[in-house]
Amino acid sequence: MSLNEHFQEYSTLIEHHLENLIHVSNMPYRQLFSAARYSVLGGGKRLRPILVLATVQALGGSIQHALSAASAVELVHTYSLIHDDLPCMDDDDFRRNKPSLHKAFSEAHAVLTGDYLLSYAFELLANDPHLQPEQKVKLVSLLAKGCGGNGMIGGQIMDIEAEGIAVDQATLECIHHHKTGALITASIAMGATVANGSEADMKALCSYGNDLGLAFQVMDDIIDVRSSLQKHGKAVSSDVINNKTTYVTLFGREKAESIAHQLGDSAKNHLKSVQGDTARLSELADLIIGRKS
Amino acid sequence: MSLNEHFQEYSTLIEHHLENLIHVSNMPYRQLFSAARYSVLGGGKRLRPILVLATVQALGGSIQHALSAASAVELVHTYSLIHDDLPCMDDDDFRRNKPSLHKAFSEAHAVLTGDYLLSYAFELLANDPHLQPEQKVKLVSLLAKGCGGNGMIGGQIMDIEAEGIAVDQATLECIHHHKTGALITASIAMGATVANGSEADMKALCSYGNDLGLAFQVMDDIIDVRSSLQKHGKAVSSDVINNKTTYVTLFGREKAESIAHQLGDSAKNHLKSVQGDTARLSELADLIIGRKS
Repeated sequence: MSLNEHFQEYSTLIEHHLENLIHVSNMPYRQLFSAARYSVLGGGKRLRPILVLATVQALGGSIQHALSAASAVELVHTYSLIHDDLPCMDDDDFRRNKPSLHKAFSEAHAVLTGDYLLSYAFELLANDPHLQPEQKVKLVSLLAKGCGGNGMIGGQIMDIEAEGIAVDQATLECIHHHKTGALITASIAMGATVANGSEADMKALCSYGNDLGLAFQVMDDIIDVRSSLQKHGKAVSSDVINNKTTYVTLFGREKAESIAHQLGDSAKNHLKSVQGDTARLSELADLIIGRKS
Repeated sequence: MSLNEHFQEYSTLIEHHLENLIHVSNMPYRQLFSAARYSVLGGGKRLRPILVLATVQALGGSIQHALSAASAVELVHTYSLIHDDLPCMDDDDFRRNKPSLHKAFSEAHAVLTGDYLLSYAFELLANDPHLQPEQKVKLVSLLAKGCGGNGMIGGQIMDIEAEGIAVDQATLECIHHHKTGALITASIAMGATVANGSEADMKALCSYGNDLGLAFQVMDDIIDVRSSLQKHGKAVSSDVINNKTTYVTLFGREKAESIAHQLGDSAKNHLKSVQGDTARLSELADLIIGRKS
């Protein structure tokens, strides 16, 4: 069962909200909005917005008041994928079984659509009708930090610069911590902000997010090998072909799986001190460790 | 006399503030910060931050409290130039007499540095120590709108799609209004927000900004022809070579100059209703119309 199916009520809310965020206007630059819809509504696990909503629910906050935050995080995630797929970056022609945005539109459209989605994420937060100004400011700060130079973008720079170079575990962890973990942790901190969580809860939840983010990435490495085994009958994954260091190339598959499980357990452990019903967050950790794709 | 020299005290403040914004850390992704400094501190007229500060001064606000807003606008402007110069966009190898960022570093670094500067602009606003939460939220909203899909990015999409196509005056105006005008108007509105300007003043100042933004662009078209005349002795500018419609190709140089002057006069006219000392804003309009480069 996929993340989407397991968190069906959140997924439905998120899809509905995203569907209504971007309208193809009759302006001469409407291609921008078509391109944005192509990418934003192109499927995806919606892990980050689900994390926002699950955190809000754990702390007894309003799910309705969290939809801007949840959508903003997904817009930022989508923009990062669009730019990541560009020829000068990972050069991926396909994303979610359809042509990447720069293939379906153009490279220029892909650069600009990514830029648009990033700025739109902040506009959404600033213009939310439910939240208090203090909450909005905190949300902007958390999102900007999570996707910024010492967050996601820092990780992407490291990832690009590490191409073709063997890296050690500490470096690999640093890449993942920034490239994937920072936005995942930001999602959780944003949920806690919407729900006005205490400082102590925020801290415990961020520790959960740190472990979860890394676990997610280790599982990605494992899945990459698994799907290659299924498709080609041999464990020569795209990561291996690209000469990319992963948890599997560093430790082998078995050890990588045990690391992922340890991280999942550690993530769930952090939830114990949170004052709230963290059952769904715990479930999310299990789903991430157990995921097949 | 250049804009920088004429507004020396603002320029000095802005340069000093920008200089201290981005530090090359000892993190493994420090190249990002070197790249950002290469672009942000690479000169430039600083028109937008000067506009923020001049507006704040006109309305009697605190210049010190406006430095985050002024810097944020300049970071956004810089990011837009970095992405604009990319091979898939305008493909410019030089910017301000030195190699463009993607030439000095790499295309991937240019994409990611632009992304970083955009998110950092919002982080700066959210974390400013002087402003009230309500002001910060308004600033984030104004900046995001100005550089967003119905602002700067919309204009860039139009500009890219108009390449090699003859466009009429209305379309050209729409491109400039979005691509250049939106961020210029946002700068002024942000200044008015920092100074807690009245709704009426905000409206008049935005009208000034609209005219000023267009005047700035018309002057750009004229300067492009002028500098080509000086360099090559003939009026075959880069715009003409690129088959780009401009105010000069549409109306001829003389008429374009008269349009620029009319826009400058109209801009200054809007200042009359503003409750404050708008002498410097008026001076700025004159400098923009009179500028040689």
